[in-house]
Amino acid sequence: MLKIDNFKSIIDKYEVVFFDAFGVLKNYKGLLPGIENTFSYIESQKKEYYIVTNDASRSPAQLADSYHRLGLKAVSSERIVSSGMLAKEYLDLKVHDGIVAYLGTENSAHYIDSSGLHTLPVSAINESNIEKVNALVFLDDEGFDWFRDLNLVVNLLRRRPIPAIVANTDYAYPVNKNDVSIAIGGVARMIENIVGREFIRFGKPDSQMFMFAYDLIREYRPISKKEIVMVGDTLYTDILGGNKFGLDTVLVFSGNTLQKDAETSMTTTGIVPTYICESAVVDSGMIF
Amino acid sequence: MLKIDNFKSIIDKYEVVFFDAFGVLKNYKGLLPGIENTFSYIESQKKEYYIVTNDASRSPAQLADSYHRLGLKAVSSERIVSSGMLAKEYLDLKVHDGIVAYLGTENSAHYIDSSGLHTLPVSAINESNIEKVNALVFLDDEGFDWFRDLNLVVNLLRRRPIPAIVANTDYAYPVNKNDVSIAIGGVARMIENIVGREFIRFGKPDSQMFMFAYDLIREYRPISKKEIVMVGDTLYTDILGGNKFGLDTVLVFSGNTLQKDAETSMTTTGIVPTYICESAVVDSGMIF
Amino acid sequence: MLKIDNFKSIIDKYEVVFFDAFGVLKNYKGLLPGIENTFSYIESQKKEYYIVTNDASRSPAQLADSYHRLGLKAVSSERIVSSGMLAKEYLDLKVHDGIVAYLGTENSAHYIDSSGLHTLPVSAINESNIEKVNALVFLDDEGFDWFRDLNLVVNLLRRRPIPAIVANTDYAYPVNKNDVSIAIGGVARMIENIVGREFIRFGKPDSQMFMFAYDLIREYRPISKKEIVMVGDTLYTDILGGNKFGLDTVLVFSGNTLQKDAETSMTTTGIVPTYICESAVVDSGMIF
Amino acid sequence: MLKIDNFKSIIDKYEVVFFDAFGVLKNYKGLLPGIENTFSYIESQKKEYYIVTNDASRSPAQLADSYHRLGLKAVSSERIVSSGMLAKEYLDLKVHDGIVAYLGTENSAHYIDSSGLHTLPVSAINESNIEKVNALVFLDDEGFDWFRDLNLVVNLLRRRPIPAIVANTDYAYPVNKNDVSIAIGGVARMIENIVGREFIRFGKPDSQMFMFAYDLIREYRPISKKEIVMVGDTLYTDILGGNKFGLDTVLVFSGNTLQKDAETSMTTTGIVPTYICESAVVDSGMIF
Repeated sequence: MLKIDNFKSIIDKYEVVFFDAFGVLKNYKGLLPGIENTFSYIESQKKEYYIVTNDASRSPAQLADSYHRLGLKAVSSERIVSSGMLAKEYLDLKVHDGIVAYLGTENSAHYIDSSGLHTLPVSAINESNIEKVNALVFLDDEGFDWFRDLNLVVNLLRRRPIPAIVANTDYAYPVNKNDVSIAIGGVARMIENIVGREFIRFGKPDSQMFMFAYDLIREYRPISKKEIVMVGDTLYTDILGGNKFGLDTVLVFSGNTLQKDAETSMTTTGIVPTYICESAVVDSGMIF
Repeated sequence: MLKIDNFKSIIDKYEVVFFDAFGVLKNYKGLLPGIENTFSYIESQKKEYYIVTNDASRSPAQLADSYHRLGLKAVSSERIVSSGMLAKEYLDLKVHDGIVAYLGTENSAHYIDSSGLHTLPVSAINESNIEKVNALVFLDDEGFDWFRDLNLVVNLLRRRPIPAIVANTDYAYPVNKNDVSIAIGGVARMIENIVGREFIRFGKPDSQMFMFAYDLIREYRPISKKEIVMVGDTLYTDILGGNKFGLDTVLVFSGNTLQKDAETSMTTTGIVPTYICESAVVDSGMIF
Repeated sequence: MLKIDNFKSIIDKYEVVFFDAFGVLKNYKGLLPGIENTFSYIESQKKEYYIVTNDASRSPAQLADSYHRLGLKAVSSERIVSSGMLAKEYLDLKVHDGIVAYLGTENSAHYIDSSGLHTLPVSAINESNIEKVNALVFLDDEGFDWFRDLNLVVNLLRRRPIPAIVANTDYAYPVNKNDVSIAIGGVARMIENIVGREFIRFGKPDSQMFMFAYDLIREYRPISKKEIVMVGDTLYTDILGGNKFGLDTVLVFSGNTLQKDAETSMTTTGIVPTYICESAVVDSGMIF
Repeated sequence: MLKIDNFKSIIDKYEVVFFDAFGVLKNYKGLLPGIENTFSYIESQKKEYYIVTNDASRSPAQLADSYHRLGLKAVSSERIVSSGMLAKEYLDLKVHDGIVAYLGTENSAHYIDSSGLHTLPVSAINESNIEKVNALVFLDDEGFDWFRDLNLVVNLLRRRPIPAIVANTDYAYPVNKNDVSIAIGGVARMIENIVGREFIRFGKPDSQMFMFAYDLIREYRPISKKEIVMVGDTLYTDILGGNKFGLDTVLVFSGNTLQKDAETSMTTTGIVPTYICESAVVDSGMIF
């Protein structure tokens, strides 16, 4: 019933391809087999790509490294746009001094740190420094004691009228074939409900993610939205966000959305991609 | 601007008084000074009382004990109606065999245990017994490892189409003058968002709490809703719930709602009590 | 995959059967063919029934009449419990004087009227009487000018801190094979969002509906929740509400839930009935 | 307690000023007295301005005309960015043929029309053309029969898996000192709830509004976000949206937010502007 398109012929129609990362290029088992062919084809056709990912756990350089270690050498850090970069831009523009408290690993904080701001884990906030805290950032679901530190966060926000920034809006992410882990975006939503405040959330489907990548391209070449296609595995983030920003979109079945559920999901949500493909893998036999 | 009523004269108009516990009879510092006078007055006037509380951490007997230790000897366990009792009734009626997994302390589970069901903490659920789990109960915010066990809960609910029962719908509770702790109801809401399921929630403002107490009275005497007044410190739970059930209601300022905010809160929420009092304490000089 | 039970053998196990109306006893085409056999069987077996319906457009007497005109003579008005009756009880208990403004037909208001309260359509509220309005009731989606009167309602609620009662919590109801109409519950939710207030909602899945019917039975005979079964076509209202109240439940496929979607719906919502049947119709050949 | 800043000295620190329209430049009584001085001052200082408004009822040319008629000659249509323009851009990029159904006045549709698409009011959709409808746009709260056409919209969306675009996300707008009108954004939210679909919403606080204005500037000059300040009367739209986009923000008291409520609102929402001013009016005596 669903018309399945050929991914290679879609690339041919656009100048730039935006990829979601998890569920499109890789999954819990590692790289999607054959995905390197897609990058070879993009290069051979003089097309460009960006990876647009809801991930604030590491810097673009660290994210690129992780692809290299998996064997995908083509990915360069300048081509990665993460929700963590938007959080960092926000802090650079809006927080001029004081302490930025965070929930996450030291690694995720190191990245924010580079803004020159003084970052401290939530567990290090106490009566002596709480009045200097000027922002709170939700970075990663690991690196802290949930019971102790989530209770600290609630009381920090009750005491200080500071912005709370959520650097990854996902609620959960897959860790193996059956199971998921709660993402920091799900944790942040709980805190938002409890304190009754509006947090500042970065990540797809919000347009700011796409605008950031779009701006990166326009720094060195003219481009129109009609020349960009967004490839993702999740209707609510990749496809809704891409559509709203005015991009054509491709839904792939290598991640969150299974082929058997796709039609029902599209009908019930009203979120419909421009194209549907098995995956973003270009068959190596098809490249030349 | 607000008309403040005399609590004693309110008692005089009704046959039965329902009290919320936290913020009305006690707070983080202990019993409300003078509250024993209220119970003496109720007894002297041949009125009756029930304590209607969103608390699933202990059995009525344990809750009554805690009042006795604080010095309020008048409270009897048969006069306590807790959201935990509704959870227990649900399990008695609806879960006939298998395992009931829970989040909470052993103490809270011991109470549910008395139903004759096999209870296990979520951390004890594994591949060998997951297929036998027939219900999940959120009892208390303590007694488990949040990071490990909340992730286990998400995956348990993804695997098993079982009812999830929330035995305390509060999002947070005060622990001292400034600070709160996240309650198990707030944690349960996060899990509900992540798994996209409808949980079964017991506790005010839901009518089932009031009905349970109302039924206890009717077992030994006739009563009409017009003869009962509900006393609470929280508009959204005590007053909204009491109003909806058809009871007259008293808002007191000894807990969540401060006198300075009361009028604004009533106007913005549209939740308006029948009476407003400083507290539920009857001045000892006023008793006779 | 789903085990389909025989409805007659379910009746045999209980003393009282609660039926949802729309989608169970009737639909947009009229009575469910053969449903009169079910009532004959219930009578022959000395069982009892109640109809528990989210409907505030007419009184129980008018609702019973409508069944009689359709040819189902067995239905008596004392066996009908509607969300409108809960709204009426609320007004009787909680609103002692002044005006009750309403949205709905004159017919729906006539019913509320019998409380002895002064009812006026929202369109009749003006500067001369607005200060006397002590409650607002959402009764029916017909009988008023949506554009004019919904705007009046928003401003009435901004001016007066009165309770707003929603006498039917449904969002939509079917009018033919393909189409639905917006129900007053959906309209009320819009107004609730706009004014940011908590409305008082009566109707399944709320327990108060079931308690009302349960109390009616207990007026003339002892009964336990284990002896009652709730039959409905909608997981979110009939089955969730029945389960939460502690009743066994039957999902039927003659209304909102189609057999082909049932398993997916149960898995994704976590709302699972005790039994599943094609419909509530007992084959006439099976009665004796 | 709140530090009130001088609006003129704020202008001095930035290159570009973004203004919200309603509650900042004008209100239900007409232009804010003296607001023309602000535009004179901006011009005299070689600063620039944009008006960033959640309004889809008219084109920028018509909106500029309305300012001219009120006596503010300085406003030019190229300096107006409306949520309607984002809706139009979406249709231009994403809907290539077929019918665009709309709710709103002919005037609002005329504007969308200019995209070359075939627009039809929802009331003109019937069995003969429903299969050609490729998008639905919520433009204005006037120009249609709410009862008839909102029911038509629900059934259109149940039949066709098309994008639904909300061109104004506001829930209500003031019409005089006391009263508001329901905006099309509030109506759209009701429909979204009823059909259970994700609509595409354009308007503050969404970043896409700010990005559109930011892009307009960059077409003719370089600019950084640090050189722009957003002025608005509403915390949730103007200030939250401006903050999130990385702009400095000014809250003014000439519209939705009253000075007496400002501190409480900021504390409870956590949305805090960079500056607070009585209004955006620069005293004429202060200009030179």
